[in-house]
Amino acid sequence: MSTKPPGGTRDFLPEEIRRREYVVRIVRDVYEQYGFEPLETPAFENIETLLGKYGDEGNKLIFKILKRGEHEASGEADLALRYDLTVPLARVVAQYQNELPKFFKRYQIQPVWRADRPARGRFREFYQCDIDAIGSTSLVVEVDLLAAVSEVLGRLGFDDFVVRLNHRRLLTALLDLNGVPESQHGAALISIDKLGKVQADVVIAELAARGMSRAAAAGLLEAFTGHADTVGRLQSLLGEHEQGASALTDLGAIVQFAEGTPAAGRIRVDPSLARGLSYYTGTIMEIAVPDLAGSLGGGGRYDNLIGMFLGRDVPACGFSLGLERIIVVMTERSMFPATVASGGVDVMVTIWSDEARGDALRLAAELRRGGLRVDVYPESDKLGKQVKYAASRNVSFVAILGDDERARGEVAVKDLRTGDQQSVARGEAPQFIARRLNPEP
Amino acid sequence: MSTKPPGGTRDFLPEEIRRREYVVRIVRDVYEQYGFEPLETPAFENIETLLGKYGDEGNKLIFKILKRGEHEASGEADLALRYDLTVPLARVVAQYQNELPKFFKRYQIQPVWRADRPARGRFREFYQCDIDAIGSTSLVVEVDLLAAVSEVLGRLGFDDFVVRLNHRRLLTALLDLNGVPESQHGAALISIDKLGKVQADVVIAELAARGMSRAAAAGLLEAFTGHADTVGRLQSLLGEHEQGASALTDLGAIVQFAEGTPAAGRIRVDPSLARGLSYYTGTIMEIAVPDLAGSLGGGGRYDNLIGMFLGRDVPACGFSLGLERIIVVMTERSMFPATVASGGVDVMVTIWSDEARGDALRLAAELRRGGLRVDVYPESDKLGKQVKYAASRNVSFVAILGDDERARGEVAVKDLRTGDQQSVARGEAPQFIARRLNPEP
Repeated sequence: MSTKPPGGTRDFLPEEIRRREYVVRIVRDVYEQYGFEPLETPAFENIETLLGKYGDEGNKLIFKILKRGEHEASGEADLALRYDLTVPLARVVAQYQNELPKFFKRYQIQPVWRADRPARGRFREFYQCDIDAIGSTSLVVEVDLLAAVSEVLGRLGFDDFVVRLNHRRLLTALLDLNGVPESQHGAALISIDKLGKVQADVVIAELAARGMSRAAAAGLLEAFTGHADTVGRLQSLLGEHEQGASALTDLGAIVQFAEGTPAAGRIRVDPSLARGLSYYTGTIMEIAVPDLAGSLGGGGRYDNLIGMFLGRDVPACGFSLGLERIIVVMTERSMFPATVASGGVDVMVTIWSDEARGDALRLAAELRRGGLRVDVYPESDKLGKQVKYAASRNVSFVAILGDDERARGEVAVKDLRTGDQQSVARGEAPQFIARRLNPEP
Repeated sequence: MSTKPPGGTRDFLPEEIRRREYVVRIVRDVYEQYGFEPLETPAFENIETLLGKYGDEGNKLIFKILKRGEHEASGEADLALRYDLTVPLARVVAQYQNELPKFFKRYQIQPVWRADRPARGRFREFYQCDIDAIGSTSLVVEVDLLAAVSEVLGRLGFDDFVVRLNHRRLLTALLDLNGVPESQHGAALISIDKLGKVQADVVIAELAARGMSRAAAAGLLEAFTGHADTVGRLQSLLGEHEQGASALTDLGAIVQFAEGTPAAGRIRVDPSLARGLSYYTGTIMEIAVPDLAGSLGGGGRYDNLIGMFLGRDVPACGFSLGLERIIVVMTERSMFPATVASGGVDVMVTIWSDEARGDALRLAAELRRGGLRVDVYPESDKLGKQVKYAASRNVSFVAILGDDERARGEVAVKDLRTGDQQSVARGEAPQFIARRLNPEP
């Protein structure tokens, strides 16, 4: 029988979890500091809650759970694994509408499951890390989200990220002005979204294949391409187009409001950003770094979705950080602090003899009371073997309670990083080790 | 369409998550300090990994996942949701045997899913919180586990818990000495396990129904009942029974070794503890508090289980804390600190006018840089409405940037707990609020 985890899923061993926990803790801390509140929903939903919410392709990728007991033989499913964090949020907003605050700002960091074909970097179980602010159409919400996300990335050590910013109505206006009929907007956006990933020629050929002249397609692309003065150019381009001009005014306000926040200087209005998702109704945003083909996260305003179970529109704006990608980039760039990369134990207490077991456990308790992370070797093996084991586990110190040390009320402390060994009074051992672990600067 | 979570599962709203996170963070911190390392495994396993591992009853309670795509119509399942954390650990020990340390001490805090009939306090999705130490038969392991678990409970504020301690071979010896044939041991233990939960008469009747005379049954129960000097009584009772006497010696050593640790004074040898699980091979332990019928957690040594995928025995000793029960008892006893119970926001910045939006966001950034948790009201509503909203959310302070304050470089700070309002220089606002939130003692 195979002992591998199922295809597309991963076992997380200690070192990997320490990296993930380091990132998640910063994300949580920042989101809490920005007034977002935690939400968690069950791993599975009633199947009706999920079916039909993600299009035909999505329906096929949902993991479905077989009915149980006498109904199992029917082969029918009544539950399904969480596919994203947005539909559960919409359900929660409907279910607890009388308990939740008028402006509900929530973060949610949980795994989702999709039956995609597993591939490098594509998993069937992966974490999503979403913030959403529900209940207001104000641009203050967009700036608050971008400030929070920028602060997360800053605290993680990213200093070269760019926030691309666009607006759904700006996209519509540029398509209108270039004579693309409304029925073709969706298809055209899918092509335009590829700008920057493929050559402009490829996009022009795609648009031409949909019946646009190559000249018109080239003109359209020109309109969507960023320049030194993108906003100025768009202003003159949009001119009298009321919807487009007001969208551009909104984007300008976001850039201006963000100046006093951690998002300052990060935002670039980019008319080609479409994010392929048809549910955005206002701003669209995405965060990129130079050494990653995809994005570190993205989001936008989607005022028609969160009310799906309420039967009315509920304003909402959200951002999803790509936790898995952030970890990949941070690992490649060696951005994790040394304390995260090293093992979790400061000192290992050795066992000198069977008679000394109780005293070794007592010493471990004393060292732990001093705030140290302490392991105890479980058996009275040869001392050399115990020390070698500690070294193999990246432990910095071993504490040895030999018969002589015990008689003198001392403990021998060996620094495995230097090989230096010293006997110290037992009561002073915790501070002795702590000082050497974190020397004063 | 219902917007409730599926039967037996729960949505965790912010207040509940804060309580859970408080407990989980202490558990993690203590376990890390004791040298246990984190492990996480996928939510689902290949179905063969789980089937047959939990008995016939367990098989029925496993959530099974339908095959996907063209195979969906077959009604067959190829994956199943995690049912406990022990079988995945056994799989991990087999899969990574060359990478894991010789003595692998891991903790794992993840949800499991069981298709039990939902009832009060019984869920279909609930968290397990396990520590296990793999690779050594030494009693040092037992003491290390009990010390860690006792420290967790101590840090959570439990001061009245008792560790009940027993040994599988002691149970066997007492049954032997009372003439219970080996084939009846399992059934007798199930009855004896009920001692303390039901009247002794009920247990005697059960044993009698299995063919034991009422006098023999009463004698048996007497042997299993704790007394002032349980260990002394057991010593004379066990006499020459080699297996039983050596088990009792082990229990005595555990009690003695624990004296220097946070488990000191907590452990009570209790011959009636059986925990209904047939897989224990050595020590059996359980933690009880007076106001809870069940236990806060339990565990023991099970040397025959972790090697199931390796085809050989691997020594192991583990303990599982009942996270859900701990939270129930702590809530009933009001053991959570006030900071956990209150909301997550220190200050809400109000929006004076549309023109002041940018400056309000800048003020929020300044306050956050001062370490405060800050929310921003998203809209330029009437000020009274904004303040009322902050009060309804248990926010302690609101910051108001009116035209006058902005002209003077000040900010008005209103303490919603006292109603007191004061204008302070903008640069001093973070410290002003922080001092009032955490006054010097």
